[in-house]
Amino acid sequence: MARTTTAGMVVIGNEILSGKVTDTNTPFLAKQLRAAGVSLERVIIIPDEIETIAAAVGEYSRDYDIVFTSGGVGPTHDDLTIAGVAAAVGRPVVRHPQLERALRDFFGESVTEAKLRLADVVDGTELVEDGNLKFPTFLVDNIYVLPGIPEIFREKVGAIRNRFATDPFFLRVVYVREQETTIADWLDQTLEAFPDLLLGSYPKLNNPEYKVRLTLESKDSDYLENALGRLLELLPAEAVVRQE
Amino acid sequence: MARTTTAGMVVIGNEILSGKVTDTNTPFLAKQLRAAGVSLERVIIIPDEIETIAAAVGEYSRDYDIVFTSGGVGPTHDDLTIAGVAAAVGRPVVRHPQLERALRDFFGESVTEAKLRLADVVDGTELVEDGNLKFPTFLVDNIYVLPGIPEIFREKVGAIRNRFATDPFFLRVVYVREQETTIADWLDQTLEAFPDLLLGSYPKLNNPEYKVRLTLESKDSDYLENALGRLLELLPAEAVVRQE
Repeated sequence: MARTTTAGMVVIGNEILSGKVTDTNTPFLAKQLRAAGVSLERVIIIPDEIETIAAAVGEYSRDYDIVFTSGGVGPTHDDLTIAGVAAAVGRPVVRHPQLERALRDFFGESVTEAKLRLADVVDGTELVEDGNLKFPTFLVDNIYVLPGIPEIFREKVGAIRNRFATDPFFLRVVYVREQETTIADWLDQTLEAFPDLLLGSYPKLNNPEYKVRLTLESKDSDYLENALGRLLELLPAEAVVRQE
Repeated sequence: MARTTTAGMVVIGNEILSGKVTDTNTPFLAKQLRAAGVSLERVIIIPDEIETIAAAVGEYSRDYDIVFTSGGVGPTHDDLTIAGVAAAVGRPVVRHPQLERALRDFFGESVTEAKLRLADVVDGTELVEDGNLKFPTFLVDNIYVLPGIPEIFREKVGAIRNRFATDPFFLRVVYVREQETTIADWLDQTLEAFPDLLLGSYPKLNNPEYKVRLTLESKDSDYLENALGRLLELLPAEAVVRQE
């Protein structure tokens, strides 16, 4: 089995840390990466500060195969991600001639310095084009620089997804009527027999149907089915509400 | 003005990173801390690994006044937060006699080793009691160890909130009909005149009412109102949809 591609995510924005905006990009990207067979190893949410962005992006760029940033890209005073990524990779910010031309064509006489800041990129940025998108995605070494606006973030992730998709995980879900404390020993025994199984146990309070949702995952579908079989042997039949 | 209390949050759970569960505890805590006048400086989402938990909790415990952990507390194989926090502070995990007694009383003859693991705490843990909660919150030095289950997480944050509430931020919101690129210069001018203003600019796509939501914040309500006045002078009257 090939080594799993790893990823880190850096979410940039005082508005997330101060609770004024709920970050929906992280759960979206987490699901997309999982479905693509990429292992998301870390997410960090940091304020709009160049040094902080540089430190987090630099660390994750070294530690993981791919890095995604979310937020801090735009024409306003608090958009510092480009400068932070530049500091992380040790290269200057330059105005990209192709993007500047596109912005001047688009805005015509109403173009301003603030608007032209959208053409500022880290030197050596690859512009990842997609026919459906108005503006290309910036790729700096292994760092995808994505905007924080959820609609655009999703559109861009969809457009670049085929660049990093590898082998997917297989998932089975078992809903259980017993408390987590009651079934813990059976989970342990299943893991002893299938140590490579990824087993999750998520209690749900006040749910009339089930008490715990168990997730079983593997990239090997036979291994997964055998592990599921073992778990179902161990659980009392009446404890299982249903499977997915 | 007294120094603002700072906080860091460590979210522990493979289920969050793999997109199987959406983390709602972070936005909840972010809002609660903001309302309490505490500045949330960092959030990190990490996998269920003792060394990783120890490193993140140790770093945040040194860097911030208060740390919150979410998740990895319970009777199952992937509940490693207590061990991770113990490694972070360099003290052993011990079984707490008072908690063990409570668990034995509660479960009676059906008590198991897995259930008794709920009584395992880091040596020196303070049990923060609240009359309304079935189980106390664990405080290890400056680290509040909270469960990941959202209903319990919220209940416990509500119960301990008065321990760290200080002076709150004042917030004003302006909804604007113009694009962010159009108003960027006026935002910059407002910040030049009021450098301590916390100014956020959040574009909203496909909204019939407004294009950008501006948030203005300060702990000084006079300063906030003066900054708001300056911004409203700069913005064309027809650009402002409404204020909050």
